[in-house]
Amino acid sequence: MDRTHILRIDCADRTGLVHAITGVLFRVGLNITSTHEFVDRETLHFFMRTEFAGEFDRETVLGELHASLPEDTRITLSEKRRKDVVIMATREHHCLGDLLLRHRYGELNARVLAVVSNHNDLGELAEKFEIPFHCVSHEGMSREEHEDAILKVIDLHAPEYIVLAKYMRVLSHSFVDRFPNRIINIHHSFLPAFIGANPYRQAYERGVKIIGATAHFVNHSLDEGPIIAQSVIPVGHTFSVDDMQQAGRDGEKVVLARALKLAFEDKIFVNGNKTIIFD
Amino acid sequence: MDRTHILRIDCADRTGLVHAITGVLFRVGLNITSTHEFVDRETLHFFMRTEFAGEFDRETVLGELHASLPEDTRITLSEKRRKDVVIMATREHHCLGDLLLRHRYGELNARVLAVVSNHNDLGELAEKFEIPFHCVSHEGMSREEHEDAILKVIDLHAPEYIVLAKYMRVLSHSFVDRFPNRIINIHHSFLPAFIGANPYRQAYERGVKIIGATAHFVNHSLDEGPIIAQSVIPVGHTFSVDDMQQAGRDGEKVVLARALKLAFEDKIFVNGNKTIIFD
Amino acid sequence: MDRTHILRIDCADRTGLVHAITGVLFRVGLNITSTHEFVDRETLHFFMRTEFAGEFDRETVLGELHASLPEDTRITLSEKRRKDVVIMATREHHCLGDLLLRHRYGELNARVLAVVSNHNDLGELAEKFEIPFHCVSHEGMSREEHEDAILKVIDLHAPEYIVLAKYMRVLSHSFVDRFPNRIINIHHSFLPAFIGANPYRQAYERGVKIIGATAHFVNHSLDEGPIIAQSVIPVGHTFSVDDMQQAGRDGEKVVLARALKLAFEDKIFVNGNKTIIFD
Amino acid sequence: MDRTHILRIDCADRTGLVHAITGVLFRVGLNITSTHEFVDRETLHFFMRTEFAGEFDRETVLGELHASLPEDTRITLSEKRRKDVVIMATREHHCLGDLLLRHRYGELNARVLAVVSNHNDLGELAEKFEIPFHCVSHEGMSREEHEDAILKVIDLHAPEYIVLAKYMRVLSHSFVDRFPNRIINIHHSFLPAFIGANPYRQAYERGVKIIGATAHFVNHSLDEGPIIAQSVIPVGHTFSVDDMQQAGRDGEKVVLARALKLAFEDKIFVNGNKTIIFD
Repeated sequence: MDRTHILRIDCADRTGLVHAITGVLFRVGLNITSTHEFVDRETLHFFMRTEFAGEFDRETVLGELHASLPEDTRITLSEKRRKDVVIMATREHHCLGDLLLRHRYGELNARVLAVVSNHNDLGELAEKFEIPFHCVSHEGMSREEHEDAILKVIDLHAPEYIVLAKYMRVLSHSFVDRFPNRIINIHHSFLPAFIGANPYRQAYERGVKIIGATAHFVNHSLDEGPIIAQSVIPVGHTFSVDDMQQAGRDGEKVVLARALKLAFEDKIFVNGNKTIIFD
Repeated sequence: MDRTHILRIDCADRTGLVHAITGVLFRVGLNITSTHEFVDRETLHFFMRTEFAGEFDRETVLGELHASLPEDTRITLSEKRRKDVVIMATREHHCLGDLLLRHRYGELNARVLAVVSNHNDLGELAEKFEIPFHCVSHEGMSREEHEDAILKVIDLHAPEYIVLAKYMRVLSHSFVDRFPNRIINIHHSFLPAFIGANPYRQAYERGVKIIGATAHFVNHSLDEGPIIAQSVIPVGHTFSVDDMQQAGRDGEKVVLARALKLAFEDKIFVNGNKTIIFD
Repeated sequence: MDRTHILRIDCADRTGLVHAITGVLFRVGLNITSTHEFVDRETLHFFMRTEFAGEFDRETVLGELHASLPEDTRITLSEKRRKDVVIMATREHHCLGDLLLRHRYGELNARVLAVVSNHNDLGELAEKFEIPFHCVSHEGMSREEHEDAILKVIDLHAPEYIVLAKYMRVLSHSFVDRFPNRIINIHHSFLPAFIGANPYRQAYERGVKIIGATAHFVNHSLDEGPIIAQSVIPVGHTFSVDDMQQAGRDGEKVVLARALKLAFEDKIFVNGNKTIIFD
Repeated sequence: MDRTHILRIDCADRTGLVHAITGVLFRVGLNITSTHEFVDRETLHFFMRTEFAGEFDRETVLGELHASLPEDTRITLSEKRRKDVVIMATREHHCLGDLLLRHRYGELNARVLAVVSNHNDLGELAEKFEIPFHCVSHEGMSREEHEDAILKVIDLHAPEYIVLAKYMRVLSHSFVDRFPNRIINIHHSFLPAFIGANPYRQAYERGVKIIGATAHFVNHSLDEGPIIAQSVIPVGHTFSVDDMQQAGRDGEKVVLARALKLAFEDKIFVNGNKTIIFD
């Protein structure tokens, strides 16, 4: 069976883009199995994602595409394949456990290369699933020193994505800049409500009737990066903070996995501080 | 401002269709504002819907499209505009009232030409909104005679769509055949659960924890036509049949309006007994 | 058929409260049809709502209850009946129209005495449903003068509740103080996200994947009063601000109606800045 | 800290039941922390669940309750504690894996004594979590023989509940009768839609826009036992059967866990073919 390839293109919008792009693929004889396009009406920017199967000469296709499209066009052409991933976590097990289960049964579309944590608690869980576990304690270290130590471990594995599966420390700008739009976090609230620490406590104090979870790319602003997916769970006056936390965990793990699936299948474009999801 | 046009195409799938279609539009100089395509992998059938703006010669575009595409291709090219609609209802006011409100404020993308009912109850409501109301009682009539009487009224208005806003009588095959994929019904259950009469009573007896509503095209099989949209509402053991009915009404009216919006904007393809929604 | 009565009690929690209260009702021979109680574990405050049917001497029951319960206990005993309501709105029709429809068909558990607006637009809608409409323009007036003029109109009707059905002006503290926990507002966001003006624009800019609506009591802090009910609607990158607004309207009107039903059936206790919902 | 006890009572409704029951608890000096009651208006049956803390003489309390209540009253009084459970599964890992993770971290309110399967596939997963795994193949056996073999294994563990975590064989009446209202199944559809085999295939063929999952007690009728909890997931025309299955898994595991939490905390009454959930 032919391999599937994914072509992603974005550029300033103009007439004829789809025709030009599909023309290149048609002339090379490729069989498109799915195409999505979107034009942002505020910025007049064009985004397109195409999956196709067939044999082709990569350089020819890229050459023809570049020749047919405006100079500032970004083009990526890659084979559909599992992504290399490092997971960071702190003490909570539910997101990490869920990801390791999916990974074990081939449902994550990723290779989990390692788990990195600032505590020892989750080592046993990683070990159950035979994933290398690195404990890098932050005790007695500045944030800079701690991140340097973590980066050394991460660099051993050279991941394409870093997943923050309830990693409870804020990352520095310089750390984030190493992995632009490649760090995905799960925040345990319905962003932008309840930014920062203890969102369930905040939700409890505010008396909301629905709580949520948000998976997003990490950028310089805490909890303000491009949102990938969100989910909600109804709550009521009988819910304690603990009840909310417990109910919320299911939302967190499910929405994180959903976001990762989208990212690892190259289905997300980051458009300023928003995402475009081609699913 | 240029008018918006909608091009809808479906045919057996083959390589190069999108390129061929966008080529015709590009050569005529039309500006595509949105395109959706879908290939049904089971039937290998191709569906495409494109919106574009600009001046063009209709015959030229259709001629070029037919020349570029397989013989069995269905092509419709129409201006984006409000649809002509007749609403049928029986006694319940909530769907009809909601549609008349939306209509009054230009949110239905339709012209409601008339309301037809087998009872008098809703006449006052139609009158409030200055919509002609025809009461065609079924008393003392065979189903055939009653439908003939209704059709006489409907034919006065020559609607493009018939909306069954809680019309509680089953339509005959011959009635339905007059309006293929042009009659939209709201059924007060989460189809295919609770087909037929008294779905809330059925849901109550079964002890379900979620009830629903389904908007669908009407075909020969009762409540089994292509589904357009569905919605759900959580219920619990404290709900009586009346409570379910009351809670369900909001779901019914909202999901019916959502389905009509999709239909009236030509965003639905019927694919066998399913729908493809390009939204 | 006997009338239904509603007994609402709250006081500092202590052992034996339920037994004491049910004892009074039992001795008078009343038939309880539903009871809810809740103890806030943080404040150790007890809340109870009971519905019962039967003939009784009001003074006797209240006397016995007060004799059996701590001194600081708040007790209200009232017949189940429709509440008197004034609706305030500005220009948007969807919430007002929905409420007037429900009212017309006896589904609001309220008598709508009047509609008050700072614009003329909705007068026609109120008139359709034969509800007095008062336009009190704010043009050329200070906020104080405007509110005085509105209060004059409201006082003519002596409502138990004021419903802000998309009333787009902020109310002063002194206005709010006139109707403590008796003004209900619908805010077109998932509070506490997007407080203030233009929440759909804010949601669009933030790139959220779910939008919401919140019905709440009005207090001194804008959009920060006790939340009664919330609802959410999924959105995506293809949604413009207008699309969000249009999709959001259905959530707004449904959640406002749900909150009013709870309030008008005396099912809500305000507990600090939260609500307890006995449904 | 005092232990928490749970008192569950049901009997034919009559006046004064709550007063009588709370009287017994009050006289013994117990501190009620939560109470729920419900009267089924169709059958006029009364249900009550009370949690309380404190020291007491069990025989005294039960004696006084029986003395105060009608003869046919069912009363259970038990300490709040983890339940003993055997999980049955076939080949799918997602529900079992999720339960074992929750169990490992003390979130299931149960002791999982063993996993029983008719295949070997899940043995490795049970082993990771150090839970005894019994493979009882059905190859070459009649259903009766196979169930006898399974019952021998189950009886070793004497569980209070049996959880069917995607156990894909239908149980005989005599098997079910051994564990009345103590077998909980997860069915991968929104019951009563798509009873029986391949519900995702059925949902795909029907073209529904929402799929679901249902956790229920098992009785003699396949997929028709009392429903405990249901959940739904939106789908669209782009979903293949596999996509539905993959998306549905998250719903299945979450709703099964939710149902088990309710059951293991003694929060469910079975009322004919329905459930009453006191949560």
